[in-house]
Amino acid sequence: MLTVRVELGERSYPIQIGGGLLKRPDLVVPHLAQKRVAIVTNPLVGGLYLAAFSAALADSGVAVLPIVVPDGETHKNWETLNRIFDQLLTHRAERKTTLIALGGGVIGDLTGFAAASYLRGVPFIQVPTTLLAQVDSSVGGKTGINHPLGKNMIGAFYQPRLVLADIDTLTTLPDRELAAGLAEVIKYGLIHDPAFFAWLEANIARLVARDPDALAHAVRRSCEIKAEIVGADERESGVRALLNLGHTFGHAIEAGLGFGTWLHGEAVAAGSVLAARVSQSMGLVTAADVARVVALFRRAKLPTEAPDLGVARYLDLMGLDKKVEHGRLRLVLLERIGSAVLTSEFPQESLESVLSGCSEHA
Amino acid sequence: MLTVRVELGERSYPIQIGGGLLKRPDLVVPHLAQKRVAIVTNPLVGGLYLAAFSAALADSGVAVLPIVVPDGETHKNWETLNRIFDQLLTHRAERKTTLIALGGGVIGDLTGFAAASYLRGVPFIQVPTTLLAQVDSSVGGKTGINHPLGKNMIGAFYQPRLVLADIDTLTTLPDRELAAGLAEVIKYGLIHDPAFFAWLEANIARLVARDPDALAHAVRRSCEIKAEIVGADERESGVRALLNLGHTFGHAIEAGLGFGTWLHGEAVAAGSVLAARVSQSMGLVTAADVARVVALFRRAKLPTEAPDLGVARYLDLMGLDKKVEHGRLRLVLLERIGSAVLTSEFPQESLESVLSGCSEHA
Repeated sequence: MLTVRVELGERSYPIQIGGGLLKRPDLVVPHLAQKRVAIVTNPLVGGLYLAAFSAALADSGVAVLPIVVPDGETHKNWETLNRIFDQLLTHRAERKTTLIALGGGVIGDLTGFAAASYLRGVPFIQVPTTLLAQVDSSVGGKTGINHPLGKNMIGAFYQPRLVLADIDTLTTLPDRELAAGLAEVIKYGLIHDPAFFAWLEANIARLVARDPDALAHAVRRSCEIKAEIVGADERESGVRALLNLGHTFGHAIEAGLGFGTWLHGEAVAAGSVLAARVSQSMGLVTAADVARVVALFRRAKLPTEAPDLGVARYLDLMGLDKKVEHGRLRLVLLERIGSAVLTSEFPQESLESVLSGCSEHA
Repeated sequence: MLTVRVELGERSYPIQIGGGLLKRPDLVVPHLAQKRVAIVTNPLVGGLYLAAFSAALADSGVAVLPIVVPDGETHKNWETLNRIFDQLLTHRAERKTTLIALGGGVIGDLTGFAAASYLRGVPFIQVPTTLLAQVDSSVGGKTGINHPLGKNMIGAFYQPRLVLADIDTLTTLPDRELAAGLAEVIKYGLIHDPAFFAWLEANIARLVARDPDALAHAVRRSCEIKAEIVGADERESGVRALLNLGHTFGHAIEAGLGFGTWLHGEAVAAGSVLAARVSQSMGLVTAADVARVVALFRRAKLPTEAPDLGVARYLDLMGLDKKVEHGRLRLVLLERIGSAVLTSEFPQESLESVLSGCSEHA
């Protein structure tokens, strides 16, 4: 088992990474304020892991309330959140009852926001079961739900007490979801660590084949980079925004096609390529750099061409981005492979030219 | 103008108290991250003050988005919150756009939770226009909405950047709402300051007659006490719970009769009398003390006899209280006039006897 710590003063917490962790209630119990938890999951993940995980906790004297909510990004909304609150209130969950998210990014975001808001805040533990959740969404305290007018528009910065990333759960992950997680892994190399990017180029086949050692390394290095960035800027007033490489384009793709049509990681992959192309048109990176980016995403089985939504629709959807300031769009661009920058100083024609190019490739 | 500071480290903020403050945009502008605000209000308060307050801000170069939501406790729910989000997203309010609550406790709680959640948190200013909001709900960062199963069950601790308490707005307050605010004022004397309680006994007629100097003093002293307690315990892990004298009973009264039937302050007054009676039955305070409490609430035109909901219904509703721990109810009781204690160590028969007494008085 590997441990990565997120250093946030009194809100610091460990990320435990390894195999068989769902059978280790001894890792969970020391973080409980009360021997009582509510485990939020969906039917699919719950069917695979809820019984064994609950039983292990119950054997350690923990009372478990299971809360099963519908699966998928389209259910990351008020209605599902209220179902969680209904259950918590009906069963009289208290201020010291811990909410545990058992699932992927949707379950983690929903449960985290429920924990932030229930009785104005109760303790919270993330047990991510997808690669995307293990490397990205379970770490750093971003929680929330979607609004018909935009993704993740309503939520809270609310840190978990513990992240338990059992990489055994990745064996049951559909190929498409594994690839979606790899998009965020590749992102870390692109924005922060050229050596990790090179390691990914050398090991992408092992990752796609789910080699446990390769996966454990990728999860660990991703969490280390995320922990470092979140530790420096918890509430995204600066460097944390770099984690959003490809996300402004990606959110527009997800919203434009309808949430759930493309997976978040797929949209991030295609969005990162668009960001790389804008960077190239500004002379920040070379065509060869962009080709490396495209090649790695392709080998990870990810889409590298964004859908043709039309330039006007893209700009409209991107205008809803949380990074917009004084009405100006800000983009995360590549300075080189391994380094990114957040800027509003890009030529509008570069952006529009790249967006209009979507139709050529699609 | 008087200033009371709430000391919470980097989240510290001033409470400005005085007449004519709605015409002082110079007090607001230094606290804005961006010269853009959304003012949330209801039709009644908006009709009285929105135009002039907005115009004063606009004259100072601030762009104002007005958001008018329905009036009353029954609208402190998801639906109204979503109307606020719809407006903010439609008009593309940004992370640095400040939300201003112009109204009473319902508007303040709703707007504060909207500010805590919109884009995971935007700046927030309280402009309370009722006595209850000026002395209590606008100070200390408790925000939230009701759930069909309980009051204020969903929310956040989220501090404003500024509280602007214009006591001129109290001139338009209905008598019943003025009295409801006085219930919380009296509460501060009861839990924390015997001299202030004595001052209230001597000056209650001036307060009921809306003497501006008396009101300014009562608002200031109430805010000082609240600021001191919140500064010592922002998230209610200890002493802050004492502010809830009468509230566990009061919330049960509000929920039992249906939200909005009794005003919150009315329920707190009757609830505080029940708490005083339990305290008396335990020998903590004398019958003469209880009589002083009842007399002061009466002179403030407040109900001092709780409705007869039946003991079982009271206990059931009180079991939903946020202070319940390990399934045990905790009550704020009086040790004497001017001092309170939070405890689960009370005889169940004292509580039930006092609750069954409601039928005799009602």
